[in-house]
Amino acid sequence: MVPSHLPKPPKGRTIVIGAGKAAASMARAVERHWAGPPERLEGLVVTRYGHAVPCQRIEVVEAAHPVPDAAGRDGARRMLDLVQGLTADDLVLCLISGGGSALLSLPAPGLSLEDKQAVNRALLSCGADIGQMNCVRKHLSAIKGGRLAAAAAPARVVSLLISDVPGNDPATIASGPTVADPTSFADAREILARYGIDPPPAVSKHLEAAQDETPKPGDPRLSKAEATLISSPQEALEAAAAAARAAGVTPVILGDAIEGEAREVAKVMAGIAHQISRHGQPAAAPCVLLSGGETTVTLRGKGRGGRNLEFLLALGVALNGAPGILALACDTDGIDGTEDNAGAVLGPESLTRARALGRDAKTMLADNDGYGFFAALGDLVVTGPTLTNVNDFRAILVL
Amino acid sequence: MVPSHLPKPPKGRTIVIGAGKAAASMARAVERHWAGPPERLEGLVVTRYGHAVPCQRIEVVEAAHPVPDAAGRDGARRMLDLVQGLTADDLVLCLISGGGSALLSLPAPGLSLEDKQAVNRALLSCGADIGQMNCVRKHLSAIKGGRLAAAAAPARVVSLLISDVPGNDPATIASGPTVADPTSFADAREILARYGIDPPPAVSKHLEAAQDETPKPGDPRLSKAEATLISSPQEALEAAAAAARAAGVTPVILGDAIEGEAREVAKVMAGIAHQISRHGQPAAAPCVLLSGGETTVTLRGKGRGGRNLEFLLALGVALNGAPGILALACDTDGIDGTEDNAGAVLGPESLTRARALGRDAKTMLADNDGYGFFAALGDLVVTGPTLTNVNDFRAILVL
Repeated sequence: MVPSHLPKPPKGRTIVIGAGKAAASMARAVERHWAGPPERLEGLVVTRYGHAVPCQRIEVVEAAHPVPDAAGRDGARRMLDLVQGLTADDLVLCLISGGGSALLSLPAPGLSLEDKQAVNRALLSCGADIGQMNCVRKHLSAIKGGRLAAAAAPARVVSLLISDVPGNDPATIASGPTVADPTSFADAREILARYGIDPPPAVSKHLEAAQDETPKPGDPRLSKAEATLISSPQEALEAAAAAARAAGVTPVILGDAIEGEAREVAKVMAGIAHQISRHGQPAAAPCVLLSGGETTVTLRGKGRGGRNLEFLLALGVALNGAPGILALACDTDGIDGTEDNAGAVLGPESLTRARALGRDAKTMLADNDGYGFFAALGDLVVTGPTLTNVNDFRAILVL
Repeated sequence: MVPSHLPKPPKGRTIVIGAGKAAASMARAVERHWAGPPERLEGLVVTRYGHAVPCQRIEVVEAAHPVPDAAGRDGARRMLDLVQGLTADDLVLCLISGGGSALLSLPAPGLSLEDKQAVNRALLSCGADIGQMNCVRKHLSAIKGGRLAAAAAPARVVSLLISDVPGNDPATIASGPTVADPTSFADAREILARYGIDPPPAVSKHLEAAQDETPKPGDPRLSKAEATLISSPQEALEAAAAAARAAGVTPVILGDAIEGEAREVAKVMAGIAHQISRHGQPAAAPCVLLSGGETTVTLRGKGRGGRNLEFLLALGVALNGAPGILALACDTDGIDGTEDNAGAVLGPESLTRARALGRDAKTMLADNDGYGFFAALGDLVVTGPTLTNVNDFRAILVL
């Protein structure tokens, strides 16, 4: 998707920056398809450990995800340095993809990574929504919330975005380092107060001081900043739908941002799959239910596996061997949770095959052991890092 | 639905029996539309407290639901007595609807209601599926699993069924009192053993003795027994779909048997509703998502309300005021849980209206207080008992 969205080379220099699970593969695509002179192309991108690919002119730094580390912090600092002192003739090409928020974590002056992490943890467990979390994060950061683009002024800043978030809002993907931020320090303080979060003293002090507000919409420093969505969960679903149609299977796209506890989402999807089998609704078989977005898993057991395996195992239990229904669930980045697999596949025989191996689906689901279940069957999908990220992908085929 | 499914009057007597939330209203429909001489029509039906309607020739008994009481037990015993000594010229018309299983609870000889309840509770909490629960129930009962029809032989037995269960299996609705049972005492023992259920001594003894097995498929006593489904969740959805079409709204039936934790089902449905708004999938707006089946609620708080209000409040939180999306969720029997309402309605303004009244949707959802939320808004749907029961009904309208 990168080549067709590349801007024209500028009169001056081109600085490529970026962060995310796709950052290195995007940087390589830029290098391979860049129409300008290679010697005026340089840059630095931060990607997750294990996600680097060799680049010629753009430095690739690996860092920790989802919990930021010093490598990401140092990369972010060097990125800010790189875009200093540019002219109106220069171009900053910013390559953003999912995971970029953790990988591009540079605390505001006076704050430590630990300070930010403490607030992050509190936000994650208090019920705040993604918009509220991002507001606070942007006001504890030296690079998020448009600050990176402001630092690059007066250069033109073109951001190419691969979205893994519902709604694909450029200000939300990787906390929008090149996008104006309508929220304020006062908003951030109010959010912490509303959820009764008592932050570390340095954070309180920083939010009270309210120095160096994020660039707001209309800020002249961002007048030459533009963001283009080059790929999204919805596009992945549309591509899958086209492949299904070509195979004579009717696609039904349920949503690009389906959320909920994985095992409960599975029950609902099983109910819809049954409806197709029994009543030909919402479409007649052969039909494939497609969905994206991120489910959650409340850990109760000691098993292994990410949310896609939890979903798939629960789907197997709910379908209970219903004939003619098959499914796949994978994280499009290639890593489901913290294991080595992207996801797995399920068929009508999965439960009986597992039983023959002494494995009971219900028991293993109670133990959150999707990995143990599908590994025993040899039905894991193992891709390695795919070097892109449009969140989860689920397909349920009803024949 | 009853009149068009009534059989021809027999040469002999007609005994009307039945149980369920719709039993009295079905009996009244029989009386009003019966083509035979009224003096050869008699009977007894058991319905839930508050669900009786006046009948002329058929006695209506009220009993407890969902936990059986002595009134139901005595009604069931009298029903068995009523169908004794019939001839091949007689007809037994059996009116079955949801709730009939609890209302028609007659323990096998030697067992008490308490014995049955103890086993029931253990089954409900062990993870057994409905088929397994019914197998055990039928082998602890003097009337379920085809025994009522067997007692009526050699009379013809016509059962009219209103289904509230997924799949509409006549052997499952009200535990199939007039339908052959393929399961055995040995199966019942095995199910208890598999789930490690240690039943009361009388139950163990009864299952070991294995006296008086349920009638099996092909049993000559049931050769003149037939069952007709006269209404089902799917028919209710189809009727709603027709009404939507007539109003220029595209119906999308997601399933007649959607299950799962109510608040998680709501998140998935919100995701699908958003997909309609943003991408016109799986259908373009104006569109209504229709679904039936029974969600569950894991109680954590101290609020009031049934599963439909829990679903609707969670839907409101997930939609967060998204414009142009409205919803209704009701139990078709008119009673959502144990309150006085069938369900409620939700609109884009519900959360802000509640906030103006000092009520926070998220907080009240955490307290399982759907009733408090929608009662404050004046948005409860109150119908009283509808005297029918095709399980839950949910409609989400996307404009």
